[in-house]
Amino acid sequence: MRLVVIGGVAAGLSAAARARRLDKNLEIVVLEKGPVISYGACGLPYYIEGQVRDLAELVHFTPERFRRERNIEVRTGAEVAAIHHSRRQVALAGGEKVHYDKLVVATGARTDRSAIPGSDLPHVFALQTPENARRLMEFIETRRPRRAAVVGAGYIGLEIATALRAHRIAVTVFERDADVLGRSDPNLTQTVTSLCRQFHIDLRCGTPVAAIEPDRAGDVACELVVLAAGLRPNVDLAAEAGIETGRTGAIRASDRMETNLAGVWAAGDCAESNHLVTGRPVWLPLGTTANKTGRVAGANAAGARERFPGVAGTSVVRICGLGFAFTGLPAAEAKREGFDPVLARIEDLDRARYFWGRKTTVELVADRRTRRLLGGSVIGRAGLEGRINVIATALASRMRVEEFAQLDLAYSPPYAQVWDPLLIVAQQLEKLVD
Amino acid sequence: MRLVVIGGVAAGLSAAARARRLDKNLEIVVLEKGPVISYGACGLPYYIEGQVRDLAELVHFTPERFRRERNIEVRTGAEVAAIHHSRRQVALAGGEKVHYDKLVVATGARTDRSAIPGSDLPHVFALQTPENARRLMEFIETRRPRRAAVVGAGYIGLEIATALRAHRIAVTVFERDADVLGRSDPNLTQTVTSLCRQFHIDLRCGTPVAAIEPDRAGDVACELVVLAAGLRPNVDLAAEAGIETGRTGAIRASDRMETNLAGVWAAGDCAESNHLVTGRPVWLPLGTTANKTGRVAGANAAGARERFPGVAGTSVVRICGLGFAFTGLPAAEAKREGFDPVLARIEDLDRARYFWGRKTTVELVADRRTRRLLGGSVIGRAGLEGRINVIATALASRMRVEEFAQLDLAYSPPYAQVWDPLLIVAQQLEKLVD
Repeated sequence: MRLVVIGGVAAGLSAAARARRLDKNLEIVVLEKGPVISYGACGLPYYIEGQVRDLAELVHFTPERFRRERNIEVRTGAEVAAIHHSRRQVALAGGEKVHYDKLVVATGARTDRSAIPGSDLPHVFALQTPENARRLMEFIETRRPRRAAVVGAGYIGLEIATALRAHRIAVTVFERDADVLGRSDPNLTQTVTSLCRQFHIDLRCGTPVAAIEPDRAGDVACELVVLAAGLRPNVDLAAEAGIETGRTGAIRASDRMETNLAGVWAAGDCAESNHLVTGRPVWLPLGTTANKTGRVAGANAAGARERFPGVAGTSVVRICGLGFAFTGLPAAEAKREGFDPVLARIEDLDRARYFWGRKTTVELVADRRTRRLLGGSVIGRAGLEGRINVIATALASRMRVEEFAQLDLAYSPPYAQVWDPLLIVAQQLEKLVD
Repeated sequence: MRLVVIGGVAAGLSAAARARRLDKNLEIVVLEKGPVISYGACGLPYYIEGQVRDLAELVHFTPERFRRERNIEVRTGAEVAAIHHSRRQVALAGGEKVHYDKLVVATGARTDRSAIPGSDLPHVFALQTPENARRLMEFIETRRPRRAAVVGAGYIGLEIATALRAHRIAVTVFERDADVLGRSDPNLTQTVTSLCRQFHIDLRCGTPVAAIEPDRAGDVACELVVLAAGLRPNVDLAAEAGIETGRTGAIRASDRMETNLAGVWAAGDCAESNHLVTGRPVWLPLGTTANKTGRVAGANAAGARERFPGVAGTSVVRICGLGFAFTGLPAAEAKREGFDPVLARIEDLDRARYFWGRKTTVELVADRRTRRLLGGSVIGRAGLEGRINVIATALASRMRVEEFAQLDLAYSPPYAQVWDPLLIVAQQLEKLVD
């Protein structure tokens, strides 16, 4: 019995490792088209920033280690050209055929370079693999660009903008949508825009880039362009094999990460998952979800019956030194999803003033009809990841605002305030939903 | 209609403020026996340590401000000698009688000095009020003691021991019980003991102090003793008035903070509350609970119908620079409560290594039969308050271990690891309960 996994990064390797733990006898083959497996793509902007000294720090496992420690065969440079499910075969680009009994598709996502003319010019970079990062760093160090354009004000775009400032490069960020970070939140956009301005990053929302030329992007002269927009799930291979995609364009998967083809699972950035608040399929390509869905796909491919309950869309990003964390639905999106959202927002200190308490902004959204929490955000210097995780945990248990307001949260002056900002914002929200 | 509140610190003032918000016409009188109201007692060790420069930083409100901004009369130096509930009167120590229609008892807790002979000697201090702290600091600065004994290795005892080391005082901590921090956890005790040793604090568990003499405590020569044990709820006044106390010795209160007497509520360190995991009454005197129960008592005294669901026993303390956080039941206590506890413990980095990730230890306890989480602990330098709060939130929603293992927690390298230690420990625990 052979399990083949297409993709050797987060989801694929989580699937392979988990399948091995549950079944010692399964033959497991991982096919990775790139030269490196098991890298932390989320660390790549920090390599550009200089926080990560060596790209090797971002690589967790080598193929050799997978083979030695887990008896899993990992082949790099193994690009799959086609899946022939009726024959239970994948065809590699070189023509080789690999038989499978069970298949996990973890083909990830890529930046779509077709959207903007000039995206293939040599001074245009994406940042998805260690090789991308190495080339970008080399370009920065040898060409010493003075001006750069970043296309896209999502997480990666704003992290890269921050990183480029560490090289004293003047940065313009173009965002096609009206708002940053993929959220319909004008307040947030304003906060990020003025923060960027302080760090000499010119953030332009509602400004698509019509074309990239050798010396400019849109109307901005620059010697370097980083594409951080147009991320798309890699589904061509799957679609050609008859694997269904959903409304979002990613592979449709059940809560067991099954596709429509028997014996084929999908996981990671190429697949949809269930949104815990709306109950509807979403495509939120994040490393955390990739690992979790990979683990579930691998377990089920090995004969277990595990479920992935879904995602709340929890994320955190550091922009120009300030942290932004989110979970659930922003108010505008909640409204589109048919809820009657009510929002409360407070500013407070993240811990006692005499322990260097700094300002933190906390938002909480609930549904007026059911009083259920729908989402929240935390902006601050410290403690924001913990606070957003508390909200995420509450979302997972469908908590109502009055229950949340009574949570027994930890307090002592070095760590918090006696009334945690989470509880204060919940008290405010309670009044608003009443 | 007059509401009288006995006690002007956390619970009492929360009650008064909340009652005012809900009823603009109620006459509200707060009677505080001490000279200062509204102080953050949890900050007192940090005044001794030097982190808080001025005790005034720990005082949130003055009586004048309460009167001016909230139309609440706050009387300091107003010690209540008796409650005559049949006449709806409290008698002050000076003889004055104050009528009430509704009464909130928020008399707090105190250190019982009767347990150890010599506790009333002038070099023996407790640390419950700003006045206590001022006197202790004056003693340290004028007498320059070289050796001190701390009685009790609970939160306050260990915080004070840390604080005394900042004055280069040799410290011995005596703990009557076998374990520290009121937890039956030999592992924890060992960790704290060796940590203390590194900081030249001699922590002796299972070592009661028979007597305090002018130049020694037990068998240790010292010029200063701090009592941080024998905290007892102040219930004499209530008990004499016919207000029932519970098994724990604190005032028995319903989930609406009602006592057995109609029109009398209790809140804060003098009252019991419901434990969210066991469903049984506990006495866990903490500032967070005092504020919350005060708020509920005040709301109900003003005619609302609010509930306090209970406490998980969540707490965090910094000892010798290292953070210790807890929630729910330790395994040994869970067993005594009739559960079949299973414990998993892991060590991991609290965030990416290249963002100065430091070791953190996370424990999670679940019940084998129901798979429900029962408690957990987190030890570390950073992020521990957030992680313990996630566990506390899960306890409040009676989450099972497999649900917890799938939580959508935030990740990016400056803040976390892609597999948060909470998820890894939950995965370990899942295997153990299977």
